[in-house]
Amino acid sequence: MPESLPAFLERVRRAVDARLPELLQPGRTASALGERPDPLPAAARDALLSPGKRVRPGLVFLAGDLFAARPERLLDPACAVEMVHAASLALDDLPSMDDATTRRGRPALHVAHGEDLAILSAVTLLARAFGVLAEAGLSDVRPATALDLVARLADASGLLGLASGQSLDLRTAPADATFEALETIHARKTGALFVAAAEFGAVLGGARPRELAAVRSYAKNVGLAFQIVDDLLEAADPAQTGKEARRAPAPTFSGHVGGEGARRLVAELTAHAVEALDPFGGRGALLAEFAELLRDRTR
Amino acid sequence: MPESLPAFLERVRRAVDARLPELLQPGRTASALGERPDPLPAAARDALLSPGKRVRPGLVFLAGDLFAARPERLLDPACAVEMVHAASLALDDLPSMDDATTRRGRPALHVAHGEDLAILSAVTLLARAFGVLAEAGLSDVRPATALDLVARLADASGLLGLASGQSLDLRTAPADATFEALETIHARKTGALFVAAAEFGAVLGGARPRELAAVRSYAKNVGLAFQIVDDLLEAADPAQTGKEARRAPAPTFSGHVGGEGARRLVAELTAHAVEALDPFGGRGALLAEFAELLRDRTR
Repeated sequence: MPESLPAFLERVRRAVDARLPELLQPGRTASALGERPDPLPAAARDALLSPGKRVRPGLVFLAGDLFAARPERLLDPACAVEMVHAASLALDDLPSMDDATTRRGRPALHVAHGEDLAILSAVTLLARAFGVLAEAGLSDVRPATALDLVARLADASGLLGLASGQSLDLRTAPADATFEALETIHARKTGALFVAAAEFGAVLGGARPRELAAVRSYAKNVGLAFQIVDDLLEAADPAQTGKEARRAPAPTFSGHVGGEGARRLVAELTAHAVEALDPFGGRGALLAEFAELLRDRTR
Repeated sequence: MPESLPAFLERVRRAVDARLPELLQPGRTASALGERPDPLPAAARDALLSPGKRVRPGLVFLAGDLFAARPERLLDPACAVEMVHAASLALDDLPSMDDATTRRGRPALHVAHGEDLAILSAVTLLARAFGVLAEAGLSDVRPATALDLVARLADASGLLGLASGQSLDLRTAPADATFEALETIHARKTGALFVAAAEFGAVLGGARPRELAAVRSYAKNVGLAFQIVDDLLEAADPAQTGKEARRAPAPTFSGHVGGEGARRLVAELTAHAVEALDPFGGRGALLAEFAELLRDRTR
């Protein structure tokens, strides 16, 4: 009997949670630079190791599974994606951004460790993500493949991804939040890292260009749907999300087309995602189920 | 007649200043994610393109020259180092860190563009630096060599370099600023990126491990001396540095051993740096002159 999706995701979550703290140890040149008690590693660990569902690593492994990638090659790249995600959460909560005092019901990173260390934790996690990919490429992943992952993760983090998405999210006036604008904001703020995660699995499994394009399309639609569901859950019950933010409401699809319209949109995006898996036939079953699991989730 | 050091450095500065804006264009997957007016690229450009001496790119080229590296292979990696440096300046000036309102006599990035965009500019430049290295490795630099650069730059940016150095700089109480502590802080905050810059040139020139170690030793000493000279110049004439900071004085060597002791230390470190070049004989002349130029500089 094939493994169920929840069992698959739980297995990934455990593997990632065991590996993340190992990867946050300082890298190869520690001895050359001396040792000092530094409050930063503890802050960075808090940012990275707070409990989470590890959705993006799950997507790396599911896409990898589709192309029969060797699981041991997926683990560190999946952890690199999670590091970038954790960095983005630490930044989103800052006083100059969402000004959130709690995250998942616990004090936000800057509340617990100070704003300076929250920012430096994000820098640390971002830099370390690329270091982890480089080390993978100097051990058991082909160097050219690892470089390809570095390029994709860099794009997903900067002007084509998280940083730009956050900038647009903060700086788009409600009146300018057209449907198209919202799509771009969400595609960068959430979609880009979903796309990178799925690409990571596909590239490591040796997917061909047409297969990679199908996986990208799947992940982009899943990422958009994911963000809209997040916004719906937050609008329905702010206390439930464990996040208290003082900034004015961010531009959302539910704000634009109403809750019913947003739910319809989530259903459509999920259907598009599943359609993108058509070329893979039955082999795409777990990814299709994953899209539906994210669509139907509650907190 | 061989090129003089000032002519060499001026040539590098021009090449870097011409290349940096090209490299800040969004990367390979722009069309897939749509276009939106976003205030972030202008802020990131301001952070990267404000006038500067391009000391670290100069070091990349000088170390590359020592091993007869092809200059066209040095340019993009040198720009990547400058991107990380620019990111660190944007972060250092933030209200939660040095709380500086000006930099090089102009408004600090967060004053001109807001704190949110200053932070996101730093993220953008950091991510793009790794993207630039990846693209170099997918074109004319060997993939394994490019990955090696990614690993070194990641180490120099995170818990073994800039982020940790800044954390220690902010969080070390004056009473705890022993000589050894100051050495670690400066080695991470300034030395690590100098070391990475010199390693970049050496690695791209095919240096052997023993040669690489000599270059590392040179760069570490030059980096420490550079930071101490910076602190001396700032202490001598705060208005001259073009930086107004509201935080309490940072831990410095001149605060620890006095101005005269700090100048002696700079002379010693520079002498150590020049000694480290002994194995290279006359070929190390430009690097030796560079160390002395940095030692003797005024604003």
